[in-house]
Amino acid sequence: MYTKYLSIQTTYMGMHDVTGLVSEEVRKSGAASGICHVSMLHSTAGLVICSKYPEAAADIMQDIERAVPTRVDFKHRETASDAGGHIKTALAGSQISFIIENGELVLGPEQAIVFAEFDGPRPRNLIVTIYADS
Amino acid sequence: MYTKYLSIQTTYMGMHDVTGLVSEEVRKSGAASGICHVSMLHSTAGLVICSKYPEAAADIMQDIERAVPTRVDFKHRETASDAGGHIKTALAGSQISFIIENGELVLGPEQAIVFAEFDGPRPRNLIVTIYADS
Amino acid sequence: MYTKYLSIQTTYMGMHDVTGLVSEEVRKSGAASGICHVSMLHSTAGLVICSKYPEAAADIMQDIERAVPTRVDFKHRETASDAGGHIKTALAGSQISFIIENGELVLGPEQAIVFAEFDGPRPRNLIVTIYADS
Repeated sequence: MYTKYLSIQTTYMGMHDVTGLVSEEVRKSGAASGICHVSMLHSTAGLVICSKYPEAAADIMQDIERAVPTRVDFKHRETASDAGGHIKTALAGSQISFIIENGELVLGPEQAIVFAEFDGPRPRNLIVTIYADS
Repeated sequence: MYTKYLSIQTTYMGMHDVTGLVSEEVRKSGAASGICHVSMLHSTAGLVICSKYPEAAADIMQDIERAVPTRVDFKHRETASDAGGHIKTALAGSQISFIIENGELVLGPEQAIVFAEFDGPRPRNLIVTIYADS
Repeated sequence: MYTKYLSIQTTYMGMHDVTGLVSEEVRKSGAASGICHVSMLHSTAGLVICSKYPEAAADIMQDIERAVPTRVDFKHRETASDAGGHIKTALAGSQISFIIENGELVLGPEQAIVFAEFDGPRPRNLIVTIYADS
């Protein structure tokens, strides 16, 4: 099992493509085949597999905000973006996994791994874990 | 592979923190490192990684209900809460996984594993599966 | 590790039950216990664990469309259903996993594995990966 903690700096409600960072860890691990698990330890940010196009990623953030508007009537009493971020995180999810074949992450030509910052800007951590199939 | 079925008793549309139950199984399994998969066999309840604060969890349930209102015009003909619960389950998800390091579940300081009852009250089952990295 | 790519033909915004296809691969793999990971390489379709009832699946598609309406004001410039499909995919998810016990996929009596086509109709691929517990 190969585990690596990675740091990124996010922007307010930004969608951050981390496909390159994760793919590089897959290569470093030396795993020819296996599974790659990506997670994070935050409760106001999500990890999603989605379109690699920045406009499509922006549409995703905008419609999640439309579904869960940042507003002042939340029970959780922090900032409105923090309180709303907890809900968005539950909907988007905090962890994803991929298979590895021929030493590469298996992803579709239009897929990307996106870190969805629902609050921020903030430094954030990602955990990439690789289980080689031996 | 260590597998354990756990029972909980839910409340109507209640958010139930099961972090302690899952963490205890990780310890019982004796795994120093590996992966922990948590799932359930129900179609009107979700498993989410979210904020450990009860007010934030209540906000999550409230906004999921706002996005998918319990109402009478569903095609699926059972109770309204059962029919709506099927939709909420598809959005929230039915399974999650975590890495294990140093014999402990890796979770952020504000993260919790929450069983989201979208119907109920009812007895429900969780499945905790642990793959030790040997 | 056993990996199989499967093809399906979808209908426009159709919910396609693929439980039988996935279960058959579990049997073919010969795994007595382990984990089964199901994913796909598309960015306008989701994989969900949900109710096996076709009416409940239709309710899921209808409420996802209500939450993310197909419309013309997306930033991503393709067809409206393609642009909306990217958002729906991020919410529904692109990969799921299950445990295998006694040579069978562990699923509840009302659960199904559903391929949710958010655009289409189109030929689509599923990837079923099985890690036997040895």
